[in-house]
Amino acid sequence: MIQTEIITIGDELLIGQVIDTNSAWMAGELNRAGFDVRYKTTVGDNETDIIDAVSRALLRANIVLVTGGIGPTKDDITKKTLCRFFDTSLVFDESVLANIQDIFRGMNKNLNELTIQQAYVPETCTVIQNRMGTAPITWFERDGKILVSMPGVPYEMQWVMSYEILPRLQQRFPAVGAILHQSFWVKNYTESRLALLLEDFENRLPAFIKLAYLPTSGLIRLRLTGKHTDSDALRLAIDDQSARLTALLQGNIVAETDATLEQTLDVVFKSRGLTFCVAESCTGGKLASLFTAIAGCSQYFRGGVVSYSNEAKTEILQVNPADITYYGAVSQKVAEQMALGAQELFHADCAIAVTGIAGPDGGTPDKPVGTVWIAVAYGDHVRSRRFQFSKNRENNILRSCNNAMAMLLELLG
Amino acid sequence: MIQTEIITIGDELLIGQVIDTNSAWMAGELNRAGFDVRYKTTVGDNETDIIDAVSRALLRANIVLVTGGIGPTKDDITKKTLCRFFDTSLVFDESVLANIQDIFRGMNKNLNELTIQQAYVPETCTVIQNRMGTAPITWFERDGKILVSMPGVPYEMQWVMSYEILPRLQQRFPAVGAILHQSFWVKNYTESRLALLLEDFENRLPAFIKLAYLPTSGLIRLRLTGKHTDSDALRLAIDDQSARLTALLQGNIVAETDATLEQTLDVVFKSRGLTFCVAESCTGGKLASLFTAIAGCSQYFRGGVVSYSNEAKTEILQVNPADITYYGAVSQKVAEQMALGAQELFHADCAIAVTGIAGPDGGTPDKPVGTVWIAVAYGDHVRSRRFQFSKNRENNILRSCNNAMAMLLELLG
Repeated sequence: MIQTEIITIGDELLIGQVIDTNSAWMAGELNRAGFDVRYKTTVGDNETDIIDAVSRALLRANIVLVTGGIGPTKDDITKKTLCRFFDTSLVFDESVLANIQDIFRGMNKNLNELTIQQAYVPETCTVIQNRMGTAPITWFERDGKILVSMPGVPYEMQWVMSYEILPRLQQRFPAVGAILHQSFWVKNYTESRLALLLEDFENRLPAFIKLAYLPTSGLIRLRLTGKHTDSDALRLAIDDQSARLTALLQGNIVAETDATLEQTLDVVFKSRGLTFCVAESCTGGKLASLFTAIAGCSQYFRGGVVSYSNEAKTEILQVNPADITYYGAVSQKVAEQMALGAQELFHADCAIAVTGIAGPDGGTPDKPVGTVWIAVAYGDHVRSRRFQFSKNRENNILRSCNNAMAMLLELLG
Repeated sequence: MIQTEIITIGDELLIGQVIDTNSAWMAGELNRAGFDVRYKTTVGDNETDIIDAVSRALLRANIVLVTGGIGPTKDDITKKTLCRFFDTSLVFDESVLANIQDIFRGMNKNLNELTIQQAYVPETCTVIQNRMGTAPITWFERDGKILVSMPGVPYEMQWVMSYEILPRLQQRFPAVGAILHQSFWVKNYTESRLALLLEDFENRLPAFIKLAYLPTSGLIRLRLTGKHTDSDALRLAIDDQSARLTALLQGNIVAETDATLEQTLDVVFKSRGLTFCVAESCTGGKLASLFTAIAGCSQYFRGGVVSYSNEAKTEILQVNPADITYYGAVSQKVAEQMALGAQELFHADCAIAVTGIAGPDGGTPDKPVGTVWIAVAYGDHVRSRRFQFSKNRENNILRSCNNAMAMLLELLG
């Protein structure tokens, strides 16, 4: 198995200013291409720590991918530090300058001296052009091992990985073993009850397949992961175990997919030509944003209302004011009317409505923080359910989104 | 300086299934309490790698905080592995069982044998109760160094850190030096132009203060970070440098704060008693979700419309259909009418409207992917501006949100 490590560099990652989303994205893409990520390290913009992290990673892994610290400003020292580590020096590269000039022409801006310094690259590396930004990608090799330094700006990194790095790695290691994941969204179980149900199943798994439990905002994601040199045999084995698992969990699997629930609904809407809308109170736009993050969602997504005030519920979604007074804004009546109101307002086939008390304040003895009513509608069919989530606001929002999507998936059958 | 390291454990973090948000949150809280995070490591649920990561971290740091891998299922091996590392064995702890029973009573569920196993803890550690979940926190000490193992579920970890770990660490290390950050949101500059402007300023900074540049979705966050044993002297020095920086950047600082722009607006709305709403096309609910993630936003946030279709723009937000036909849905006319329509619909003092082409498809020669019109309204005042962002959907959504919030902050003065 070819081992890969990821090193992310930047003080902003060590003081909590920025969440590292790069390494998860990279790990997912590397896995799909057959490369196993074993270790991730984050260090600051500090020469000693960068050299320590790089040298340890190169001892353990075949491939080391480094992001960050290659901007034009003084705090970015990755390029200089890698020069020192690989015992080489900076030379001017005309092709990098040409790429930078191209990019600046596109933005109608003039080059300044700091940007021109981006065209200095380590002499002994292979330079790869970064079409999305001014910092070039540098590819080093030593003792059969590879280290690539690339930008930390997420969309630049994603372009570089997809179009330059992954294709080269696959060409270089054509015989990497396969890694396959199969995931299941499971409802109605706690983690420990599920583990007891699956104890036997788990004990009988072949050694090259592992089962993992991942409680995810109100549902549990079960994941079978297999690693094997023969990808066809692995596919058969994973399919076989998936079938056993499905039989054991009958009726409690919301979706059998590695995708998120919004990606799963995206496929359903597109393939069946259904349109969709949302009415959100406590999820406050989160549900809409999950779908609108997906390219091409305008095929089915008509829109949403974030009805944070009672007036928005009655005036825009046509909820009966008397029902809000009598049953409260967090009630079955209101959730169902929100779903039907949104369906009509947006002329959509399906709707999700969520109303609840996200917290930390606003609870009552009858309806404590974490009380959420969810309604889903498809044509004339409406289903609604009360949930009791946690005391944590963020957790309540995410659990509401996931359970709402699970309910709609079920209604769509 | 007391050095801290964070180790996050879990296969899900190494295959890209889950983004690690824990370590950024922990790092932020640790910094505020005066603890410096120098290294973060992520390993899978694998004994060799956990032991390797733990032993290296304990060589470098005084405090090692470990999250993840302590659930009741078979794939979670952190507790067992730490037992082995610290050469101790598991013993049954009645106080942990009592805590688990409390939690299950609250959920009206019965204990099963797997959950009861959570009450076995390493004999030589100090046990801390986890009031948010069934996995106990274990605190180890060796050779004057501290290692704490805690849950990976974000809201459990956050509760544990806030109420149990940070107070104990502060009691233990009362004389840790201070770490202070002061950040500035800057508009109208590229990173390299800003660096040239600030070259002199940067060269004259005292050795204990560093300047960092962080391009963030269409704006640049500048950050002064100081570390010093005397916290009063550090505060004065940071304030002094902040004043110099503000003078150099006059008119281009959107906000002088370590907070996000939505947190900054949250303070403005609350302190001035203003109400607020949004009308979103290409940002698709993201802007609303940024505000509704903040507890107490219902004081000012009236709601939002995600008008993904033209009908939603005309029927709900009262945009003139003829203007959509003549100028297009992505135009100044439509953006301004969306803002005013939302203001009226939600009876709000302020509004933000965004309409654009997020991509990757849908662009035209006149309006390529990344074209975004933003309008902000406050009372009778409306301002609007055209932006040309990137080809990347996620990036365009985030840049739209940030620039829209910057425009409203400016309009509010």
